[in-house]
Amino acid sequence: MAALTRFSVAPLAGMTRRLADVASGRADPDLVITGARALSTYTERFLPEREIWIAGGRIAALKPAGAHKGGARRYDAQGAILAPGLVDPHIHIESSMVTACAYAEAALLNGTTTIFCDSHEIGNVMDVAGVEAMLEDARQAPLSIFLTVPSTVPATSAELETAGGDLTADKIAAIFDKWPEAVALGEKMDFVPVALGDERSHAIIAAALSRGRPVCGHVYGREFVAAYAASGVTDTHEAIDRDIADDLLEAGVWIFLRGGPPTTPWHSLPQAIRAVTELGASHKRVAVCTDDRDADDLLMFGLDWVTREAVKAGMSPEQAWSMGSLHGATRYGMEGEIGGLGGGRRADLVLMNDDLDPTHTWYGGELVVENGRITPLLDEALSTRYTYPKAAYATVKLPKALKLAPELPTERVTVSAIRTELPGITLAHEKIVLDPANDWQTHFDRHGLCFVTVVERHGKSPGNVAHGLLSNFGLKRGAVASSVGHDSHNIIVAGTSEADMQVALDAIEAHQGGVCVVADGVVKALVALPIAGLLSDKRVTAVAEEVQALKREWEAAGCTIAYMGFNLIPLSVIPEIRITDKGLVLVPEMALQPLFSPA
Amino acid sequence: MAALTRFSVAPLAGMTRRLADVASGRADPDLVITGARALSTYTERFLPEREIWIAGGRIAALKPAGAHKGGARRYDAQGAILAPGLVDPHIHIESSMVTACAYAEAALLNGTTTIFCDSHEIGNVMDVAGVEAMLEDARQAPLSIFLTVPSTVPATSAELETAGGDLTADKIAAIFDKWPEAVALGEKMDFVPVALGDERSHAIIAAALSRGRPVCGHVYGREFVAAYAASGVTDTHEAIDRDIADDLLEAGVWIFLRGGPPTTPWHSLPQAIRAVTELGASHKRVAVCTDDRDADDLLMFGLDWVTREAVKAGMSPEQAWSMGSLHGATRYGMEGEIGGLGGGRRADLVLMNDDLDPTHTWYGGELVVENGRITPLLDEALSTRYTYPKAAYATVKLPKALKLAPELPTERVTVSAIRTELPGITLAHEKIVLDPANDWQTHFDRHGLCFVTVVERHGKSPGNVAHGLLSNFGLKRGAVASSVGHDSHNIIVAGTSEADMQVALDAIEAHQGGVCVVADGVVKALVALPIAGLLSDKRVTAVAEEVQALKREWEAAGCTIAYMGFNLIPLSVIPEIRITDKGLVLVPEMALQPLFSPA
Repeated sequence: MAALTRFSVAPLAGMTRRLADVASGRADPDLVITGARALSTYTERFLPEREIWIAGGRIAALKPAGAHKGGARRYDAQGAILAPGLVDPHIHIESSMVTACAYAEAALLNGTTTIFCDSHEIGNVMDVAGVEAMLEDARQAPLSIFLTVPSTVPATSAELETAGGDLTADKIAAIFDKWPEAVALGEKMDFVPVALGDERSHAIIAAALSRGRPVCGHVYGREFVAAYAASGVTDTHEAIDRDIADDLLEAGVWIFLRGGPPTTPWHSLPQAIRAVTELGASHKRVAVCTDDRDADDLLMFGLDWVTREAVKAGMSPEQAWSMGSLHGATRYGMEGEIGGLGGGRRADLVLMNDDLDPTHTWYGGELVVENGRITPLLDEALSTRYTYPKAAYATVKLPKALKLAPELPTERVTVSAIRTELPGITLAHEKIVLDPANDWQTHFDRHGLCFVTVVERHGKSPGNVAHGLLSNFGLKRGAVASSVGHDSHNIIVAGTSEADMQVALDAIEAHQGGVCVVADGVVKALVALPIAGLLSDKRVTAVAEEVQALKREWEAAGCTIAYMGFNLIPLSVIPEIRITDKGLVLVPEMALQPLFSPA
Repeated sequence: MAALTRFSVAPLAGMTRRLADVASGRADPDLVITGARALSTYTERFLPEREIWIAGGRIAALKPAGAHKGGARRYDAQGAILAPGLVDPHIHIESSMVTACAYAEAALLNGTTTIFCDSHEIGNVMDVAGVEAMLEDARQAPLSIFLTVPSTVPATSAELETAGGDLTADKIAAIFDKWPEAVALGEKMDFVPVALGDERSHAIIAAALSRGRPVCGHVYGREFVAAYAASGVTDTHEAIDRDIADDLLEAGVWIFLRGGPPTTPWHSLPQAIRAVTELGASHKRVAVCTDDRDADDLLMFGLDWVTREAVKAGMSPEQAWSMGSLHGATRYGMEGEIGGLGGGRRADLVLMNDDLDPTHTWYGGELVVENGRITPLLDEALSTRYTYPKAAYATVKLPKALKLAPELPTERVTVSAIRTELPGITLAHEKIVLDPANDWQTHFDRHGLCFVTVVERHGKSPGNVAHGLLSNFGLKRGAVASSVGHDSHNIIVAGTSEADMQVALDAIEAHQGGVCVVADGVVKALVALPIAGLLSDKRVTAVAEEVQALKREWEAAGCTIAYMGFNLIPLSVIPEIRITDKGLVLVPEMALQPLFSPA
């Protein structure tokens, strides 16, 4: 057969006669999955003893078990729950450091068959070319991947950082007009400028709205909700507590409850869902999403896990699975295609046990996961993945002989240190007085500091290097470095040894991207990210293993916050102080701050 | 100001900055409606003590009452319920025998601010030109009117009837491509051919689906549900009982619960809603609609009344109003524009009492109904209505000297009579043996019969006249006639006197359309319908009065079924026997049947 992709299933428009024939019993289906307990996302009920008739990769009919008497392949569900595949309404593939094709494997293992991804990381590195390369990647993946067009690239401005991308309203409009899978505007992260009526932000929103495309959101702070909703934003995944979730729902904004590893701040579902469970809001405009995942967390904390968390939080399994499938489809106007077991829909299906733990996945009527393992069909599909263009493999452009550490102060000075704190998202501005010392190590030992340096890598401001000091990061020796440094993705290096920092930087340059741990001049662990400096070109299982090895070395080096938190250190839209290639940035003042000031 | 239409409110894309300014308090709204109890269709809750800020005809924000301190017009809701205007997801304007502009008055009085209309009656008479004239009419109305493109014109085929319209897949595709308000395919009434895989029917469905437009439905019979849903149909308003409603919901089909005067078969809501109230189906994919209304029933039995019927049937007021507003918007992918009190939405609002009886309506932020009466602003808007093209005023083309009654049989014969039965939709095939008699009146007296004759009026088959006999119709003398004869809208005349039938026909021809009652050579009542033979060009209040006068004469003449049921006598898709200009038609055999056969 041809490659298994979203396009393996023909559009419904050309298939209605065949499906009517099958549903009426005039023609045989290709496949009957029988002996199942159907989970209806439409009515939020279980339907006992059902079978589903599939033809041409679509659902012809849901019938009582045993209804089909003619010929067809049969699959015995043995009483398991049959449900539509999950629909993830908001994710960033790049967070998992894999390609779209590779991401598909993990998604299908979790029973996720459709995702709406915002590729703003690769957009920040490669502008439109990066977004379009990932769209091609998505088209060749055995998964339905739709794009919410990156809306906030760069995250701030050229005064504060050097980015590889600059997605203007015109460029965004052109993406909408060219790519049918560009179904919405991606999270409009600059909610303060939006609320303040910023011209560029609103021109970008208008590019979507004037084309009938909805606008996805990202907002913190109840005081911004009204202006943000009035600006045309109709979803957010950033509702972090009950009351802002409630405000957002009342303002007409869909809520995507985000679940993530419970030790991380991504796991806001348990709080936000209280708008439903405690305040009595209808859940009909509530979905669940994953947003970001480490590659090795993809399997353990997939959207199926998030759905189970919704059950733990008080929703019924039928409601929770509906929030995980139909509601995302409804939000994007695709409920005629996905999200339920209705006639004509894609046969994107899962079987699972009573705990909503999927064991089998059919994608467009093809069995791709069976008893928790990928089938040979999927394995083959995953072996012939999209190849990114050469330019994507050459995005780390570094001058030679960079100075990676600040000059040692010769007088008493105050430094503006960046204090990391768990869980790792906000960073405190800590002012520390340094008495003169003979070397930096003395300062590090006295104050719990290490170097943190950002190196421009897009070749737009060659030689831009900014020096800072990290407090409380815990790194005892060597260096850690990453070419994933949100959102502009310059290289971030932290270390106690300038030599080890250089080794880390060299390793990243050699691979044209990566995250690594170095000690004593040796690379102890490295995940190579040669595509845009963001993505591995390996399969997700391989990347997951590399990430686990990296995490072990990361922890052994003493780092207090995880590498995903480390990658956020340059993200100059989150309080309180960040560092970009232009220097230290104070948030929300959006002003540069010198490292040293008189004591 | 310019005329009040849907276009009086600018698209959101160009208004987001202003709305953000107002919502943030940097600019004043145009209007604040304060002191209200908000009904949230999003969360299905009442929110006490609220006010709404309106700018440029859109909602800037819903706030606690008293929040706005600056300048703005203020309207004191005095504790009434504030809710979004109703959204009627399925109606036929022609059933009310008024223009779209005239229909607006009744809709707004009922708190309905958006309707999705299927203009298949005028399509049956005037083909694309009729649909497009009504679209122009709709664009000039002070109401948001969207089109579900007529999908089943003619209802049957040229073998069985002469229709004025023939909407092929190509013509339908052209309507979609030309008119942005053509948002869906209208009810695909030929559900049997659809289920059987008929080529033309599926080509029409494909014209919609391939353009991303949803397909609306009309289906009876649980045995057809699976094939119909598999054909891509995603709503129906014809769920007449609990079990088919349940089947449809499970097949992924939205249900529009139809309410109508309780004495008519249109009032299927109380039965169908039991899928929710008894079987526990979620109501999230359930809306309410009106479908058809006599002009004089428009005010008493509007969508607000249907919503109240849903409350009577066991839904909460918040759920019922949400089914009446948000759910229709969601079904058509317009929830960012209408159906709720969210930011950025059109300020289409109602105030009402605790019984959900609207007293005030704002359309695009303009007060159009106050204390149950239209405002001078609306009155003015209704005085400058769209004028239909001349061709629309010349659609009744009748040859002279038609023979309106069958020959008196000279021998004993069996006649295939059409037996009318309450409530008037299905018609029984009654075989009656006629012994020879001197005149028809003898037969009428013996068997409770009268003439029924259909006269072709499109000028396509000039002189086509079909003769039949009505049983149990109750007409004692004179004649009744109508140019509204579903769906081809040839002239239907019933009577005991050929002379009075001719008077009725002449009256209809003189007005180029109408419904009338004639006795003793005198027209006792007539509603003139000069536009396409279907619509009055008067305001809805005038038409309602005329209809009431007609109904009085209709009843006085003894007719057992109402004129809307009479108009259905030629509709050869409903069992058991009908009459078209080609003769008697047996349904579902879809075969012509001679009037007389040997006894």
